[in-house]
Amino acid sequence: MRKHSTSLRVRLPVFVVVIEVIILTLYAAFVTYDDNADAKLQTNQTNPMDNSMYKDYPFFTDIQVMIFLGFGCLLAFFRRYGFGGMVFNFLTATFAIQWAILVQGYFQFSRDGKIHLGVINLINAEFACAVVLISFGAVLGKTSPVQLLVMALLEVPVFAVTEWAVVTYIKINDAGGSILIHLFACYFGLGVTFALYRSCLNEGHAKENTSYHSDILSVMGTLFLWVFWPSFNSALTLKGDDQHRAILHTFIGLSASTLTAFALSAMLNKNGKLTMADVQNVTLAGGVTVGASVDMMISPAAAYALGMMGCTACMLGYKYLSPFLARRFRIQDQCGIHNLHGLTGLISCTAGIVAILTATEEVYGPSMYEIFTHRAPMAGDPRLLELQVFIPGLQPGLGRTAKEQALYQVAAVFLTIGVSALGGVLTGFVLKLPYLASPSDDFCFDDELFFDVPLDYDSPVKLINVNTTEDSAA
Amino acid sequence: MRKHSTSLRVRLPVFVVVIEVIILTLYAAFVTYDDNADAKLQTNQTNPMDNSMYKDYPFFTDIQVMIFLGFGCLLAFFRRYGFGGMVFNFLTATFAIQWAILVQGYFQFSRDGKIHLGVINLINAEFACAVVLISFGAVLGKTSPVQLLVMALLEVPVFAVTEWAVVTYIKINDAGGSILIHLFACYFGLGVTFALYRSCLNEGHAKENTSYHSDILSVMGTLFLWVFWPSFNSALTLKGDDQHRAILHTFIGLSASTLTAFALSAMLNKNGKLTMADVQNVTLAGGVTVGASVDMMISPAAAYALGMMGCTACMLGYKYLSPFLARRFRIQDQCGIHNLHGLTGLISCTAGIVAILTATEEVYGPSMYEIFTHRAPMAGDPRLLELQVFIPGLQPGLGRTAKEQALYQVAAVFLTIGVSALGGVLTGFVLKLPYLASPSDDFCFDDELFFDVPLDYDSPVKLINVNTTEDSAA
Amino acid sequence: MRKHSTSLRVRLPVFVVVIEVIILTLYAAFVTYDDNADAKLQTNQTNPMDNSMYKDYPFFTDIQVMIFLGFGCLLAFFRRYGFGGMVFNFLTATFAIQWAILVQGYFQFSRDGKIHLGVINLINAEFACAVVLISFGAVLGKTSPVQLLVMALLEVPVFAVTEWAVVTYIKINDAGGSILIHLFACYFGLGVTFALYRSCLNEGHAKENTSYHSDILSVMGTLFLWVFWPSFNSALTLKGDDQHRAILHTFIGLSASTLTAFALSAMLNKNGKLTMADVQNVTLAGGVTVGASVDMMISPAAAYALGMMGCTACMLGYKYLSPFLARRFRIQDQCGIHNLHGLTGLISCTAGIVAILTATEEVYGPSMYEIFTHRAPMAGDPRLLELQVFIPGLQPGLGRTAKEQALYQVAAVFLTIGVSALGGVLTGFVLKLPYLASPSDDFCFDDELFFDVPLDYDSPVKLINVNTTEDSAA
Repeated sequence: MRKHSTSLRVRLPVFVVVIEVIILTLYAAFVTYDDNADAKLQTNQTNPMDNSMYKDYPFFTDIQVMIFLGFGCLLAFFRRYGFGGMVFNFLTATFAIQWAILVQGYFQFSRDGKIHLGVINLINAEFACAVVLISFGAVLGKTSPVQLLVMALLEVPVFAVTEWAVVTYIKINDAGGSILIHLFACYFGLGVTFALYRSCLNEGHAKENTSYHSDILSVMGTLFLWVFWPSFNSALTLKGDDQHRAILHTFIGLSASTLTAFALSAMLNKNGKLTMADVQNVTLAGGVTVGASVDMMISPAAAYALGMMGCTACMLGYKYLSPFLARRFRIQDQCGIHNLHGLTGLISCTAGIVAILTATEEVYGPSMYEIFTHRAPMAGDPRLLELQVFIPGLQPGLGRTAKEQALYQVAAVFLTIGVSALGGVLTGFVLKLPYLASPSDDFCFDDELFFDVPLDYDSPVKLINVNTTEDSAA
Repeated sequence: MRKHSTSLRVRLPVFVVVIEVIILTLYAAFVTYDDNADAKLQTNQTNPMDNSMYKDYPFFTDIQVMIFLGFGCLLAFFRRYGFGGMVFNFLTATFAIQWAILVQGYFQFSRDGKIHLGVINLINAEFACAVVLISFGAVLGKTSPVQLLVMALLEVPVFAVTEWAVVTYIKINDAGGSILIHLFACYFGLGVTFALYRSCLNEGHAKENTSYHSDILSVMGTLFLWVFWPSFNSALTLKGDDQHRAILHTFIGLSASTLTAFALSAMLNKNGKLTMADVQNVTLAGGVTVGASVDMMISPAAAYALGMMGCTACMLGYKYLSPFLARRFRIQDQCGIHNLHGLTGLISCTAGIVAILTATEEVYGPSMYEIFTHRAPMAGDPRLLELQVFIPGLQPGLGRTAKEQALYQVAAVFLTIGVSALGGVLTGFVLKLPYLASPSDDFCFDDELFFDVPLDYDSPVKLINVNTTEDSAA
Repeated sequence: MRKHSTSLRVRLPVFVVVIEVIILTLYAAFVTYDDNADAKLQTNQTNPMDNSMYKDYPFFTDIQVMIFLGFGCLLAFFRRYGFGGMVFNFLTATFAIQWAILVQGYFQFSRDGKIHLGVINLINAEFACAVVLISFGAVLGKTSPVQLLVMALLEVPVFAVTEWAVVTYIKINDAGGSILIHLFACYFGLGVTFALYRSCLNEGHAKENTSYHSDILSVMGTLFLWVFWPSFNSALTLKGDDQHRAILHTFIGLSASTLTAFALSAMLNKNGKLTMADVQNVTLAGGVTVGASVDMMISPAAAYALGMMGCTACMLGYKYLSPFLARRFRIQDQCGIHNLHGLTGLISCTAGIVAILTATEEVYGPSMYEIFTHRAPMAGDPRLLELQVFIPGLQPGLGRTAKEQALYQVAAVFLTIGVSALGGVLTGFVLKLPYLASPSDDFCFDDELFFDVPLDYDSPVKLINVNTTEDSAA
């Protein structure tokens, strides 16, 4: 079989050097330190241990592990594409974060013409990076590293603009990012994979298999994500009881979806056995499903139920919806992100709306207006002063009713899905431009195309015990 | 070879659905938020950063890694049972934790008819989960996932009752859980494996081997446990200097036992080489051995000596005691938990008693009565008021002498061993009930029985460098 | 092929027992608790949550992961020496830390004839351990475990003395340890490997290959190091904004060097593909390069540029310098530590000097004298009192000018390189003493020599799906 040249030698360095020069210039021109990282702003009133970094950094390291080890191992499940999964994840994530620092910085952290950089920006940038990596899951194995970098280059700004528009104008409750992160990432990824349709993948590609070790590695990735997901869902909530609840709900949701996933996996498998792909993916559904309402007083039981529901939808999606989408709509979703992030995201949004509609001051006390900030009375409203007795720092809100807030949530869902799907399709067509595209359909799931590996790479490890046999070592 | 059906298709979903409905109902009826996670209880006096979660969550994430990645990788050491080790650990742990939240919640965290849930409950539940996973080590490879879930279903309540009885009535010092966690888990597991005796395992089962990669994976599990063990042993100590000492002692104990393990492994091996099973297990002995006295002023040197002693006992146990127990008492201890948790636990208890008997106010200062709470003067004793000058929040104790406390420690050891061994044997017989039992002795160490794997799973990864050969890719 | 006995059975236990008795004696005689870990020193004024442990422990656990899992996996890249890489890393690290607690304790943490032990000592000891492990990289595969322990035994004191001399007398700025850790470790390791020259290694040793799984494992090690490197570089900086900047710079530096590494790897590879060794090593260069100026106000753009520069130097070093050093100077640097720690360390020192020379009060404000402590006015200088208005706790310094400080930095570099290279060569000759040396050149990269592995270890995992074929399981 003839292997096509991927020309990494020219395209990758050219792309990287150009982009690095641009990024370096922009950093030099526009990026300065956050007040908490600026030596000059420290006074004799500053208590070093009050630095915002101490609140953010523990969550940041947890998310780092999820991004680089969690996604990295999880995506390494193809037997002949383990390097591709893990290493391109590393490359794409690194670029996406440094790019998001700039783009999100422009929209969210700029002041006086400068982007102010602290650990909090890094957390936000890692969320933007997670968006790119989820979308990557849809096109795993059929994109070259240069295509992945271009995808990140385009997806990050579209995401940042959507995020900014939703946060600034629509103003929603979405602490765990079910709408902004998971739905956006999912529909963007589906858009890209739709544009990159490959006919050969439909009847099951020969290389599209796992091996014993790649499956184990992928489960390790799942476990890294599972273990630190509470940090992901709670990193940007309000400090205190809100963050506490976000951790509890995420843990319970994941726990319920994991147990459910095992049951459904055995039940739906044709041999009545467990399927490793289910263990690797469906177990995680609960983490997404609790997202939109993760900081609200939904009760632990509701988190448990959400975990079960999300898992069931995700499992049925893998079983029935994904093959259908591939056959009828030419949407080849390699990792099934539509099941793990799309369906679960929609359930999560619905649950969030229900939680908003049923929230009462009886359950939340006055801090209801801290969680649902947009429902707080407007500036000037005497009710605001009353509330500020109980919550000294309460900001004036928009005086929205529960129903109004629910409608805004729905609007954000539609806007996010629309923008991301459109952005994804357009990005996909950019990736098909002659200079970027891969030459043929053969170009999939193959580490050999990108990695310089020695000739005898695949002979098994030889280890013969010397004491029992003396002439056997090659 | 004829493979027996394990009927996961029916039994696993039925069990899971029933148990999930029960758990969901109980959560809905009885589980509410801890004061630190309840929005309504936050007042204008509440400083969000004082939330208990910030003290507990860092320890919780460390223990999460130990439970899911540490145990998961460590138990994946069989060459044909890597999925079983890692994935059944995931399933069993998840269930054990959500179940323990309820059962321990009933005994330890209930008030006004409700279980109050915070991150602290999750830490406690993960300890109960660790108990189940240690016991799992004794029966690794000869239990189906349904049997493991039933084992967790029964072991968690027996553990929670024992824990409650010991904490409420006997009142002991056991910060690192050497008595309550390690001894309980060990003797419960031995009880179960005794009841599940398999004659075929005695002359060495053909599948009972490791592979190069499974051994490496298992060492990674050991390293995850090693690295975070100080968090495990210190998670529930008093805050401040007590927790500080617990970290130091655990680190030093592990460090000493690791060095010793390498020496003994080479010395006792028939070829004078290192045995991977020793590297994977015996190195960890020090973490258990320092447990019962981990927060006391035992001195760093004592922690070092305890590490050496625990390691030596553990190594000799693997070499001589385990085969003896298997041959003479039909106790087949697959992972050697009696060596790593039983023998070391007994040494730890003894060391704890010695530390109690030798503790003086000269060494501890007045905070002696914070560490040995039960030795604090009783309410009404004028000595209590004197002490409260130095330690404002000191609670009245039971006025026990050192000798009395030592006797209570001994009583707790005997009670724990008795209850756990009995509970284990009874649980083992439940697991042999017709509907749960496996059909034959062949049913061991075999991923094929439980996992749906493709036909060509075991052919080695083929990676041929394209530039040097063009017609070799299959 | 005849395999030579390595006599682990006698040498390893003898060495370990002797050293353990010595360490235990010294711990018993000299090691007591740090004030923050001593029960007696807690008064009614003590707030337990102010314990220094809470500031240090999160950084400690991150560094633990780097040392044991990061280095462990990274060094396991040889196909036949995976156990050796991972397990000897475990052994050597464990011993180096417990030994460094004593040696560094003597120089840095002793008072009233006692070494005072807290988590802060453990962090320092893990830095000393990192030094040993970096040097280990130079001789990977050609040293027995006993030789590694002897190397640690000798390297730790030489390092501790150098560290003490530089910190006490030369007084430099080196928050990330580029001079003291990376340069020292590099030139010590090169010295050792020079002394341990093996002619057989020059024309490429047959066993010196990687396998698919060993390469993946090694990338995981890289990712563990990458993810937690900000904690490594910031663990010993001043608390507050300094630590905040150290985290930001390290992240940005790593990020830039990773992106650059991919571009250069594809560009310089003869087939225009990515080389796994580059992904495993060169990506990390940025973490070292930002080290010496990591806490200064160098600007995010400078950190980015440093990452690019360090990466380029490192890559060119791997490509051209390492082969040259091996051929001409008989310096066989197995893991290329001269590229990853030496060249990058030198760039980092230069950058540090530039940062010192360009630092102004305009940029830093008065807290400049906290970061550049030695430039603070001397005791008695009226300027000191002025500054103390802004920074209440400011200590008197040495009144050095920027140029003076720069010269001291240069002096420290030369001293460190000189002492470490000499110490390394001498240590190398000690390792060649008859009792320690390996018998022949064959003794390399071979797990069989040290690990007792079963006969059929290398046959691939057999997993045949039962439902499709019934007579195929062996």
